[in-house]
Amino acid sequence: MNGQMMQQPLLISMLLVHAERHHAEQEIVTRRCEGDIHRTTYKQLAQRSRRLAKALAQLGVQDGDVVGTLAWNTDRHMELYYAVSGSGAVLHTLNPRLHPEQLCWIAAHAEDQVLCFDLTFLPLVEAVAAKLTKVKHFVLMTDRAHMPKESKIPDLLCYEELIEGQDDGFIWPRFDENRASSLCYTSGTTGNPKGVLYSHRSTVLHTYAAALPDALNCSAREVILPVVPMFHVNAWGLPYIACMTGAKLVFPGPGLDGKSLHELFESERVTVSAGVPTVWQGLLAHVEANGLSFSTMRRTIIGGSACPPAMMRAFQEKYAVEVLHAWGMTELSPLGTVCTFKPSQLDYSKEERYAVQAKQGRAIFGIDMKVVDEEGKELAWDGKTSGELLVRGPWVVGDYLKGEGGNPLVDGWFPTGDVAHIDAAGFMQITDRAKDVIKSGGEWIGSIDLENIAMAHPAVAMAACVAARHPKWDERPLLIVVKKPGAEVTREALLQFYEGKIAKWWTPDDVVFVDAIPLGATGKMQKNKLREQFQDHLLQAAPSA
Amino acid sequence: MNGQMMQQPLLISMLLVHAERHHAEQEIVTRRCEGDIHRTTYKQLAQRSRRLAKALAQLGVQDGDVVGTLAWNTDRHMELYYAVSGSGAVLHTLNPRLHPEQLCWIAAHAEDQVLCFDLTFLPLVEAVAAKLTKVKHFVLMTDRAHMPKESKIPDLLCYEELIEGQDDGFIWPRFDENRASSLCYTSGTTGNPKGVLYSHRSTVLHTYAAALPDALNCSAREVILPVVPMFHVNAWGLPYIACMTGAKLVFPGPGLDGKSLHELFESERVTVSAGVPTVWQGLLAHVEANGLSFSTMRRTIIGGSACPPAMMRAFQEKYAVEVLHAWGMTELSPLGTVCTFKPSQLDYSKEERYAVQAKQGRAIFGIDMKVVDEEGKELAWDGKTSGELLVRGPWVVGDYLKGEGGNPLVDGWFPTGDVAHIDAAGFMQITDRAKDVIKSGGEWIGSIDLENIAMAHPAVAMAACVAARHPKWDERPLLIVVKKPGAEVTREALLQFYEGKIAKWWTPDDVVFVDAIPLGATGKMQKNKLREQFQDHLLQAAPSA
Repeated sequence: MNGQMMQQPLLISMLLVHAERHHAEQEIVTRRCEGDIHRTTYKQLAQRSRRLAKALAQLGVQDGDVVGTLAWNTDRHMELYYAVSGSGAVLHTLNPRLHPEQLCWIAAHAEDQVLCFDLTFLPLVEAVAAKLTKVKHFVLMTDRAHMPKESKIPDLLCYEELIEGQDDGFIWPRFDENRASSLCYTSGTTGNPKGVLYSHRSTVLHTYAAALPDALNCSAREVILPVVPMFHVNAWGLPYIACMTGAKLVFPGPGLDGKSLHELFESERVTVSAGVPTVWQGLLAHVEANGLSFSTMRRTIIGGSACPPAMMRAFQEKYAVEVLHAWGMTELSPLGTVCTFKPSQLDYSKEERYAVQAKQGRAIFGIDMKVVDEEGKELAWDGKTSGELLVRGPWVVGDYLKGEGGNPLVDGWFPTGDVAHIDAAGFMQITDRAKDVIKSGGEWIGSIDLENIAMAHPAVAMAACVAARHPKWDERPLLIVVKKPGAEVTREALLQFYEGKIAKWWTPDDVVFVDAIPLGATGKMQKNKLREQFQDHLLQAAPSA
Repeated sequence: MNGQMMQQPLLISMLLVHAERHHAEQEIVTRRCEGDIHRTTYKQLAQRSRRLAKALAQLGVQDGDVVGTLAWNTDRHMELYYAVSGSGAVLHTLNPRLHPEQLCWIAAHAEDQVLCFDLTFLPLVEAVAAKLTKVKHFVLMTDRAHMPKESKIPDLLCYEELIEGQDDGFIWPRFDENRASSLCYTSGTTGNPKGVLYSHRSTVLHTYAAALPDALNCSAREVILPVVPMFHVNAWGLPYIACMTGAKLVFPGPGLDGKSLHELFESERVTVSAGVPTVWQGLLAHVEANGLSFSTMRRTIIGGSACPPAMMRAFQEKYAVEVLHAWGMTELSPLGTVCTFKPSQLDYSKEERYAVQAKQGRAIFGIDMKVVDEEGKELAWDGKTSGELLVRGPWVVGDYLKGEGGNPLVDGWFPTGDVAHIDAAGFMQITDRAKDVIKSGGEWIGSIDLENIAMAHPAVAMAACVAARHPKWDERPLLIVVKKPGAEVTREALLQFYEGKIAKWWTPDDVVFVDAIPLGATGKMQKNKLREQFQDHLLQAAPSA
C-alpha cells in the first residue's frame, strides 16, 4: 500500500523558484572578472536564468546534453547552474587549473556541447579550442563591451547578448528526479579522471542535509561567501543551500588573494565562508601583516584537507572566527561529515575541545559510514583503530560516468580511499589517504599527524610526510619541508620537535628541505610526485633508525 | 540520462538506525503512565523497537497492515512509531479525546488490526472493545505488574511481555519509499473524519525540512519536550526530528498540567518545546501563580491555532522564552510555515518585531503556497488582501484514504480551508478559517483578530467571535466571552476596548457572556456549535448597528 501524499519530484529548479518567491529581494553580490562589484537579487537571477535556459535551447541544447563551464564563483556561473540543470541538461564544471591536455580529455569524455567561460580563461580556450571538436558553441561570459574584437575561436558568442535576446516566459520543466543534473570529475592523481554524475534527487537531498543545524547551519540571516570554487564539487553545495535558505550570497570571482577576500568579507558583512586550508593561509597572512580583523565573520568551514591545528587556533583565538572541520569528496556531492559538538562536549576544557575539533566530525543525516580492516571487517569505534573509510547514502556515487573503472562499490558501500578512525561518539578522523599511509614493519603510520606537528613549528611554511623505502622496515616516514621566508631550522631541531607529541617510532627518519611542494589543481599537495622523487632517499642517506 | 548516484530509499527506519549508530547513549526520558520517570537511550530504544517489530510480525502483522495506538507521548509510543512503520506496516495514531463512537468509526474505517493503548485508556477500550470487530489483538502498553487481574477485553496482551519474548536479531526491511508509513485522521468538525496516509518519503522529507535553521532549528544540543501529542499529526514530527539530530527527548506522558510540565522542563533541562496555545495557558498560569521561571527553556513553538499576543509577550518578556509561531495541518504532515526573522527584520523596533511574530511565517523549503480569490485567481502578496490559502509540496496530501470526499486538489494545489494574506517578504498570516469568516455586507471580517483583542482584556479568559445573522448586513460579528474567575467586565467596556485597535465597522455588534466555550478533541474552539446556538442572537436582541 502506498502513501497518498503529493508526488512531486525533487528538482534543482525548485530551489530557484523558492528563492524567487520567498526571498525575491535578497542580494547576490559578485566581484566580476570585468573588475566591478555587481549587485543583483534572487528575483533578477531567476529571471535571467529562465532567459538563459531559452537561449541554450535555441542553441540546440536538449535534455541530457552537457554544458561545460570554465568559470569563477560569480552570479553568471550561478545562472548557469540553474539554467542548465533546471532545463534538463547537465552542467559540467571544468577545473581551469588542470593541464590543458587533461581539460581537453575531460571535455571530450563528457561530450560537452557548449562551453561557457570567463574572460580570464579566454587565452586558455583560444589555445585549445581547435582540439575541442565536440563543442558546438563557445560562450564568453561577459557583455558586448568586453568581447574581443577578434578571436581564434570561431563564432564566439556573448553571454549577455544571449540573455538579452530572450524574454523570461519560460517554465521550468518537470521530470523524473533521478535525471542527471550535473557532472564533476575527480582530480585523478592516478589513472584518468572519473566523472561523477549527480542527479536532481541527490542534489536536493544533499542540500537539505548540508543546511541542517549540525551541518553548515545556514539560515536566511547568513551572508555566505563561498571561497571554494564552483568548479570544485559545486562549491560544496553552497549555491544550492543559499537558494534553499534565502541567504545573501557574495561571490569573490577571480579575487582569491587575501586582500581581495578580506575587503569583501568586510564590505558585504559576510558571516560564513568555506574553503580549503591553503586559501585561508593566504587570508590569515594578509590579515596578520596588516593588523586587520573580522568584524562580521563568525564561522569558516574548512575541508578538502585537514586544517592545521595552528590555523584553527589563530582563527578562533585571535579573530573569534569559529572553525568547522568538514569532510567530503567529489563522490559525495561532497558532504559526508561536519564537526559540530555534541551536548556532552560543551563542558570540555579548551584543549579537549580542540581535540574534538581536530576530527572531521559526525556523519550528516543520510550518510552512513564505517571503517574496515584489510579483510573488509568493520572495526570498532574506539577513536584509535584506523582502517579504510566506507560510506553510503543517497548522494554517494553508485557508478562513475560510462562505467569508468568498473563497479566502485563493495557490498553497497563506497570505499573512499581515506584511512580513518571513528570514536565512540561517532566522530571520524582522517589519518591518511590509503595511498599515503606509511607501512613501517607491518604497522601503519598516518602522514597527516606528522605533517600537522611540523606545521606547528614557527619556521615551517609547508610540510609533507611520505613513505621512503627502508631496508629493515620496508617503509619509514620522510619529512619534506618548505621553510618560511627568512626562517631557519635544522633537521635535528625539527626531529626533536616531535618528542612527546607522538609515539617515538612514528618520528620521521629524516628531513629534506625543498623550495616548493608541488600542488595539484584542487590545491592539494601532490604527494605521489614527492614519493617518486624521494623514495630512495633513506637507502642513499644512511637512515638514523 | 539518469544520474549515477546510489539508489537508496528514504525510509523511516533510517532515522532510528542513524540515532542508534551516531547517538547511541543520548537519553530519552519519560514520565510514564505508571507514575515513574523512566530513562532509556537511543541504543536501547532501537533494540526494543526491533524486538517489537518481531513480536508484531508474530502477531500476524504484515506489510501494509494497520496498527492503531491510543497513547500519550512516551518512549513506548515512540518504539511503536519505528517498529510499525519501519517493518512496513502502517501506524495509526488515534486521538483518545474523540467521542468513543467516532473512535470506533475511525478504527473500523482504517481497518486497525492491532490496538496498542496506555493504562489510562483501559476503561475506554474496555467500553468499546466489543465494537472493534476488526481488531484481532489488544495490547496494553505496560508491564506484567500493571496488567489488570481480569479484563473484559479477551486475550489482552502485555506490551513488555511481547518485547521480552523476542531477541533483537531483526534487520529493517528495505522497500519503496512511497509505501505508506502512518495514518492520521482530520478532526472533521463537518462530515466524517478523513484519513491522511503518509509515506516514508513524505515523512523523511518533512523531517529534513522541519529541522532546518529557519524551521524548528534542532541540533544534537537540544533537549526537546513535545507537549503536542503523538496522536496529533505525529507530534509535529518531533519524534522523527529527534532521531535525525540526536537530540535528547523528554516525554511528558499523561502529565500535561502546568505543574507536571514545569517540573520536567526544569529537572531535565529542556531547551525547546512545542504545543497549542491552550496548553501553554495552563503552564503560564502555574508559573505565574507560583513565582517560578524557566532556567533552560529558550524556545517554544506554538501552532494549532494562533498564539494570543498577550501570551507571546508573557513568554518573551517575563520568561525570556522565544515564541516561534508555526502553521500546519494534518494534511501537511503537518508543517507548512514557521515564523523566523529575515535579516532585514533584525533591526526592527520591538513593536515591529511583534507584528512579524504575530504572523504564521514563511514557507519551509518544499512547501509552496498562494492565496486566491473566490474565482481561484492568485492574490498579491501585499500583507492585506486575504483569500483562501492553497499549498503544495512532497508532504502535502494528494488524496484522502479510500478516496473519501473525492479529489481534494485544485490544479495540483491543496485548498487548506484557511483564509490568509501573505506580505511582500513572504510572511503568511491566517485571518480565519474559511467557514468562520464573517461576511458583512459583502466584505470579509476575520474572527481571529477580534478574538485576540478581546483576549488582551484583563478580565477575559476565553473569547470566540462568530457570524450572527443580521437583517441589513447579512452577517455581523458577535463576541462570546468567558470571564476570568472573579473578574468583571461589561458589554460596553468590552466593545469600547476595540476602539482604535481595528476598523470601526469590524467592531462586534454585541457581547454574550457564557460559562464555557466548547472545545474539540484537538483543543480548538468548536465555533460551529457557537454559530448554531447564537445565529439568531442579533435578530432577537435589537442590534446596535
